[in-house]
Amino acid sequence: MFRIPKHIGVIPDGNRRWAKKNGLRKEDGYEYGLTPGLQLLRAAKKSGVQELTYYGFTVDNCKRPKAQVNAFSKACVEAVRLMESEDVVISVTGNTKSSCFPEELLSYTSHEDKADCPKVAMRVNLLVNYGWEWDMKNGWASQNISRIDMVIRWGGMCRLSGFLPIQTVYSDLYIVKELWPDYREEHFEKALQWYQKQDVTLGG
Amino acid sequence: MFRIPKHIGVIPDGNRRWAKKNGLRKEDGYEYGLTPGLQLLRAAKKSGVQELTYYGFTVDNCKRPKAQVNAFSKACVEAVRLMESEDVVISVTGNTKSSCFPEELLSYTSHEDKADCPKVAMRVNLLVNYGWEWDMKNGWASQNISRIDMVIRWGGMCRLSGFLPIQTVYSDLYIVKELWPDYREEHFEKALQWYQKQDVTLGG
Repeated sequence: MFRIPKHIGVIPDGNRRWAKKNGLRKEDGYEYGLTPGLQLLRAAKKSGVQELTYYGFTVDNCKRPKAQVNAFSKACVEAVRLMESEDVVISVTGNTKSSCFPEELLSYTSHEDKADCPKVAMRVNLLVNYGWEWDMKNGWASQNISRIDMVIRWGGMCRLSGFLPIQTVYSDLYIVKELWPDYREEHFEKALQWYQKQDVTLGG
Repeated sequence: MFRIPKHIGVIPDGNRRWAKKNGLRKEDGYEYGLTPGLQLLRAAKKSGVQELTYYGFTVDNCKRPKAQVNAFSKACVEAVRLMESEDVVISVTGNTKSSCFPEELLSYTSHEDKADCPKVAMRVNLLVNYGWEWDMKNGWASQNISRIDMVIRWGGMCRLSGFLPIQTVYSDLYIVKELWPDYREEHFEKALQWYQKQDVTLGG
């Protein structure tokens, strides 16, 4: 039987490296991650994944040069707009009490209506101005997000970089060497195949 | 310049698989992990690593058959005895308020004297009857253990399995395919070489 992870976490890393490689300014890389995000969402939905969580940007990322901060913030707003047409429930999690949080996304941070949407194909969470310290200090602020079965990270690094430390305690981590804007559906398919060989013990 | 991780986490996985492969009972695998543990400690100390944290066993592991629980518990006690001769400060972290915690190790759970041993070559932490939920519910009970730069996991799985979720938020995770009792110093050396190529950003 083919085991489909219920919940997949996505770390779309490598936008700046991709921009540099392609002769662009670092901040120009983020918009090239929008189409991959949509393609991955559709592939996951087609496979029967129930929940998908994207690592948007973090509180720490906001210390970067302003041009970059503006660019990834804008990309997150744009991503939500694109996903709106995909028959999914979108939820945004992050520190809203900071100027770094884009106000266009405030209305997505209320999680009350989740239970009312049982017929929607998939839940999609986006971390926006998220911080693991913020999460912990606020009594596990992200607790509406469920346990993550597999994290797929693009860009070659084998680390979680503060991505939902509680939800990922038992996650299998699959690394794609290619940079995020170079996403291909084949990456996702290979990750699913790899997941078949992982023995899920949940710490037992 | 060769960058040495200050603090390395060790997940010595694969003892049971190794035992099975070698025609032994599952519970007989753990004692074959003792010599590797000592060899790795010496290799790390020689390399200038300042702190080493071993994942001993967890609260959840204690739900396994009694023969296994006895065996890995005994192996942890024995590991501490062996490390006693290695000129390191040994500290044990875990839930002591449970019959699963070996009383021989109680005296190692007091962390007060750490600051008094500046001349000791390395600190070694051992997680014994540790649980990430226990850690969190007790207001970060493991906070005497510092941030971990690199986690090396033996046995092929790419996951943290509840290993110190706060200390590992930015850790690079290096996977050794071989099972823990098949440890060779070459694994550690390769991990150190791999670490050179990782770009430490601490979330920035």
